[in-house]
Amino acid sequence: MRHKGNNPTMKDVAREAGVALGTVSKVFNGLPVGDSYREKVEEAAKRLGYQVNSYARGLKTNKTYTVALILPCVTDPFFALLAEHTSLCLAKRGYRTLLSLTGSDPEAEQACIRMVEQNKVDGIISLTYNPDLEVNGQIPFVSIDRYFSSEVPCVASDNFGGGQMAAEKLISLGCKKLLFLRIGSNVSGETDKRGIGFQTVCQNKQVPFEMLMLEDSQGFETFRTFLEAHIRDGKLEFDGIFCNTDRLAYYIIGYLRELGIRVPEDVQIIGFDGVRQFNSEDLYCSTIVQPMAQLAETSVDIVLREDRSNLPSLICLPVSYVPGGTTKESWPANT
Amino acid sequence: MRHKGNNPTMKDVAREAGVALGTVSKVFNGLPVGDSYREKVEEAAKRLGYQVNSYARGLKTNKTYTVALILPCVTDPFFALLAEHTSLCLAKRGYRTLLSLTGSDPEAEQACIRMVEQNKVDGIISLTYNPDLEVNGQIPFVSIDRYFSSEVPCVASDNFGGGQMAAEKLISLGCKKLLFLRIGSNVSGETDKRGIGFQTVCQNKQVPFEMLMLEDSQGFETFRTFLEAHIRDGKLEFDGIFCNTDRLAYYIIGYLRELGIRVPEDVQIIGFDGVRQFNSEDLYCSTIVQPMAQLAETSVDIVLREDRSNLPSLICLPVSYVPGGTTKESWPANT
Repeated sequence: MRHKGNNPTMKDVAREAGVALGTVSKVFNGLPVGDSYREKVEEAAKRLGYQVNSYARGLKTNKTYTVALILPCVTDPFFALLAEHTSLCLAKRGYRTLLSLTGSDPEAEQACIRMVEQNKVDGIISLTYNPDLEVNGQIPFVSIDRYFSSEVPCVASDNFGGGQMAAEKLISLGCKKLLFLRIGSNVSGETDKRGIGFQTVCQNKQVPFEMLMLEDSQGFETFRTFLEAHIRDGKLEFDGIFCNTDRLAYYIIGYLRELGIRVPEDVQIIGFDGVRQFNSEDLYCSTIVQPMAQLAETSVDIVLREDRSNLPSLICLPVSYVPGGTTKESWPANT
Repeated sequence: MRHKGNNPTMKDVAREAGVALGTVSKVFNGLPVGDSYREKVEEAAKRLGYQVNSYARGLKTNKTYTVALILPCVTDPFFALLAEHTSLCLAKRGYRTLLSLTGSDPEAEQACIRMVEQNKVDGIISLTYNPDLEVNGQIPFVSIDRYFSSEVPCVASDNFGGGQMAAEKLISLGCKKLLFLRIGSNVSGETDKRGIGFQTVCQNKQVPFEMLMLEDSQGFETFRTFLEAHIRDGKLEFDGIFCNTDRLAYYIIGYLRELGIRVPEDVQIIGFDGVRQFNSEDLYCSTIVQPMAQLAETSVDIVLREDRSNLPSLICLPVSYVPGGTTKESWPANT
């Protein structure tokens, strides 16, 4: 690491390029100037490592080139992927990411929104659990997974389609009695549609099913008790389970192992998200994969869009099913 | 979600509190004012959701209340934990986190540093892989896991002590021939000390050992080939392996399973980091746990320290060993 006294200025670039300061300013501000001058300035700027000062640029254009990203956390692999894709996508367009983590606490979320509003960011991309969130309508705002009103664009995966896909897949793989398990916030959101899509298919195809939907506060242990109560003569009453996240599937697979129920031999499991272990190829379970890069790209697109007269209120992006060892795609061929 | 035309101003607070504007200003700037006035203003500010505008505050104090956090990524669980703890720690002190992800690319790292320097952040906390990084000495800079010079404070876990701990633990659990496996950047850093600490113990205790240290570009498959070449008559030549990360341990455990070697029956494995699956209690392996919260807290402490005349050049924080199912603590009792 080398220390430098200071970053190069426009004056340094002018000296290095052998041109007038005004010429450098014209080049950096996109004003017309002869090609040979432009080349000289650009080469000198590159040699010196000069970058257009986006703070000064902001004072002129009234932009901060900063977008706030408000998430519950980044230790959940789904949020980590979302943060990474969004931040890289913003960086590619010359924008910085102001990261705020809220722990899903409604008051912390409101405080975050107030803080970033007062610090004049150019936009807010947010995944929140506060239905009463107050936002200053003047800053472009995109909500992920949470629909507020037709005035606030919401970007989400096709949760309904994903729920349908999970039910159809389990049925096509031979399941006769299905179960939907869900744990999450009691604030309604787009992700609720996973269960509704699942239910719709079961009803249409007249496949018997049950649904157990818990709030975060009820804890995972309730699922264990439920599963235990549905074992008769060592057999689980269900042969297909759709979990609303891979995280939940991870816990359910652990409980089933403890209870002596085999996955996928006795019961097939499909999760939702598409989380991979240590960024390897390994999924935790067969799952409905969310298009993370597209979710990020679409949110950034909308938050930075210049013309804000005709914004969509909800954009759903396509999901896909990927087998991950907890369903019987290769069954019984491989055993 | 409710839309509001605008955030409340100091004028609104004065009107709500029934006091003069100057009184409100005094309260917010910490100047002396009668207790009953202070209470009125604070209550009115709370009712209106008024927050001191830190942008305006910044113009006065020449502070931005923003710290840049430069990391390779947040999808690696170790970096995710670091990002989360650092961001929450900064928020507690009224500072915002500007997150920059570099993908470990030296040029991207240099570009990040230049960008944040030009945007007048109050400090930089950075985990980089660029040994030639140029930094403007005027902005407080803390490096994590990477020692640059005595002028740049570096915060790290006690990697040397952790390596010693791993070797001592494997030996005390009965291992007779040890192996150290490492994959990572070819840029030297504090984490190299994991292997050195391990080696020191093996040499002192005269326990035979080998070390295989790869660069990222060589890929994980080389480990598989190495392990396969060290199996004789179905037995691995080593009965204890220390991996430089939990991530590597995860891959090694997979290879061993494919090769028919049992963990921990045939070979015991210790990783490094202390990553837990889906933020549950479940570790991937027995491991040397890094003190994530303290790493973050210490980095923030140093980057925000007012008196910069007597800074440490390296701070190592204590690690701990936690069994996670890939060592024989309960062996053979539980089988």
